[in-house]
Amino acid sequence: MKTFSTHVSGLDTSPIRKAFELAATLENPINLSIGQPHFACPPNIIAAMNKAATDGKTAYTLTGGIPELKEALVKKYETVNKIKYASPSRLLVTSGISSALLLLFSALINEGDECLIISPYFLMYPSMLKFHGAKTYTLNEKFTKEDTKKLKFQNLKLIIYSNPSNPTGYVMSKEQLDLLAELAEANDAYLISDEIYELFDYDKKFLSVGSFYEKAITLSGFSKTYSMTGLRLASILASEEVIKVLTTLQQYTIVCAPSVTQWAGIEALKTDMSSYINEYKANRDYVYDSLKDYYPVDKSGGAFYFFLKVKGNDEDFVKHAVLEKKLIVVPGFIFNESHSYIRISFANTREKLEMGMKALQELA
Amino acid sequence: MKTFSTHVSGLDTSPIRKAFELAATLENPINLSIGQPHFACPPNIIAAMNKAATDGKTAYTLTGGIPELKEALVKKYETVNKIKYASPSRLLVTSGISSALLLLFSALINEGDECLIISPYFLMYPSMLKFHGAKTYTLNEKFTKEDTKKLKFQNLKLIIYSNPSNPTGYVMSKEQLDLLAELAEANDAYLISDEIYELFDYDKKFLSVGSFYEKAITLSGFSKTYSMTGLRLASILASEEVIKVLTTLQQYTIVCAPSVTQWAGIEALKTDMSSYINEYKANRDYVYDSLKDYYPVDKSGGAFYFFLKVKGNDEDFVKHAVLEKKLIVVPGFIFNESHSYIRISFANTREKLEMGMKALQELA
Repeated sequence: MKTFSTHVSGLDTSPIRKAFELAATLENPINLSIGQPHFACPPNIIAAMNKAATDGKTAYTLTGGIPELKEALVKKYETVNKIKYASPSRLLVTSGISSALLLLFSALINEGDECLIISPYFLMYPSMLKFHGAKTYTLNEKFTKEDTKKLKFQNLKLIIYSNPSNPTGYVMSKEQLDLLAELAEANDAYLISDEIYELFDYDKKFLSVGSFYEKAITLSGFSKTYSMTGLRLASILASEEVIKVLTTLQQYTIVCAPSVTQWAGIEALKTDMSSYINEYKANRDYVYDSLKDYYPVDKSGGAFYFFLKVKGNDEDFVKHAVLEKKLIVVPGFIFNESHSYIRISFANTREKLEMGMKALQELA
Repeated sequence: MKTFSTHVSGLDTSPIRKAFELAATLENPINLSIGQPHFACPPNIIAAMNKAATDGKTAYTLTGGIPELKEALVKKYETVNKIKYASPSRLLVTSGISSALLLLFSALINEGDECLIISPYFLMYPSMLKFHGAKTYTLNEKFTKEDTKKLKFQNLKLIIYSNPSNPTGYVMSKEQLDLLAELAEANDAYLISDEIYELFDYDKKFLSVGSFYEKAITLSGFSKTYSMTGLRLASILASEEVIKVLTTLQQYTIVCAPSVTQWAGIEALKTDMSSYINEYKANRDYVYDSLKDYYPVDKSGGAFYFFLKVKGNDEDFVKHAVLEKKLIVVPGFIFNESHSYIRISFANTREKLEMGMKALQELA
């Protein structure tokens, strides 16, 4: 048979999924590799989705999303993110953040474009940017003004990061966001802020760059906040010009986000998730207190991860953890350029976390 | 701001959607432009989806689809399509045929690859192939052995068609499918058969090329058959090698088809749609009988369209139809290289069809 396209050759099945498959083979593993909440999607959201289905909302929606959801999203951007310029014509509803990235990278990247990724990073950013022919550069999330001053680009097309961060839980400061907005402005580059973990913000430090930088492209998801990762729903807030191009591209690819899921999204935006977030904050504190005397660890500020520096090689650590403790964690090399870290998720029951912390203490 | 990528510049908002928007501005239009069934998704399918949601099936599924749906699809391919080699490892469940095309073209096409499209064609084929850098060629659906013998390619990567056809309703003969399989084999090219309208086969002439050509890539959808276009569900049957690459690519883009929709799909495959199909067959006969003395028209054999030759320019006809009769149809130029046709859909109530036929008779 004919060969595949040259760009797919760089893609590999993610080690997170490998961990997932490994977990399936073990009896009663301690699985701290999971990238989604352990609580159920709230029943009022399920009820809203079921009502939409029963009411016959199973046909194509408008490409950009149903107007009712767009209106609810405008309110969310105004109140949660303090983004005053949010409007339906600046919004695209799409089928999860991954689809948002697909549309953005397809619409923006030409072969050889330079892209800056804040590191450690969500593993899809470099993979999909390279897939689209970009040259990628990284900047550590602890960057200062000195660091951004040193950066020199010929043709910087975009800057991308997740805030709060997957995999570190780091929440960027206002000063850092200012520096990134300045860098984007100086290079006439797009600034893409992936805020899928926005509500998992334990110390009230999270700030949307879009609240003060109108050219920002803000990505918001429903998957993590409302535990609906399988329902495929997210939104993009950008300039009308960008949204117009993304909407056309969506028409030829994704077509529309699932209809019933969009109705679920309206109900989700009315749902108070603070009790869930508080539970995760307690998990965050518990994990930090359990590990701080065993590992050199920064306290996670958001999302539901710790990025833990381990002795020796990350992949060796991961193998030992499985074999000796039935503990499943993700090797850090897929999120940064070093082999010195592992990612652990605290989206789990307290019982499992206790077992996990004991295992990690013994592995230290 | 920086420019967009060069390949998005070729995409235009589809005239079908323009017709849709136009319809929204008219009071009581006769809308024969619609590309989806007018009946509701059967209630047992809705109930199965709602049960899945209530049971908490809202998390990511396996990338390739839930095993239960894959098993049901294997049976469907065996019984409906007479494809004996169907197996879970040769299947990918994805988020609608458009996503299937996105994955296939991304995985297969390199800049400059030659692609052959049977014409008239589903408008996404040439648009998305060109988007991926392909050189496209067409072959009229009425082709014979003489026609395929004349074709010469340097580097034919794939052949694609929809069967039954959108926009003509044409159903290919065994002889034609043989010729395409031979052409694919001789050029070591992929043969992609989009069978989303497979059940809309009014004269029992439809045949899956995959039933006798194992290298075929067969695309099946749920959208049209079960009136669930907004639920985003389809499947790809191909070699294990191709499915492996597509699954990896799906992991980085679509992630998975919507979870609850996949559960709906299992119930859909158990649902007898013959009464719905019979109604559309009666519609097909009614439209043909109403138009045959007014237009030179081939009797549609499948899908729910007629591709009607009109006097003068298609876009002019479409404008007159709207202004004089409040009749909305789709100009044919988006489906083929000429400006001599319009597409009309008979996925509608008999009352609307009667109004539409009267209008078309008067416009002839």
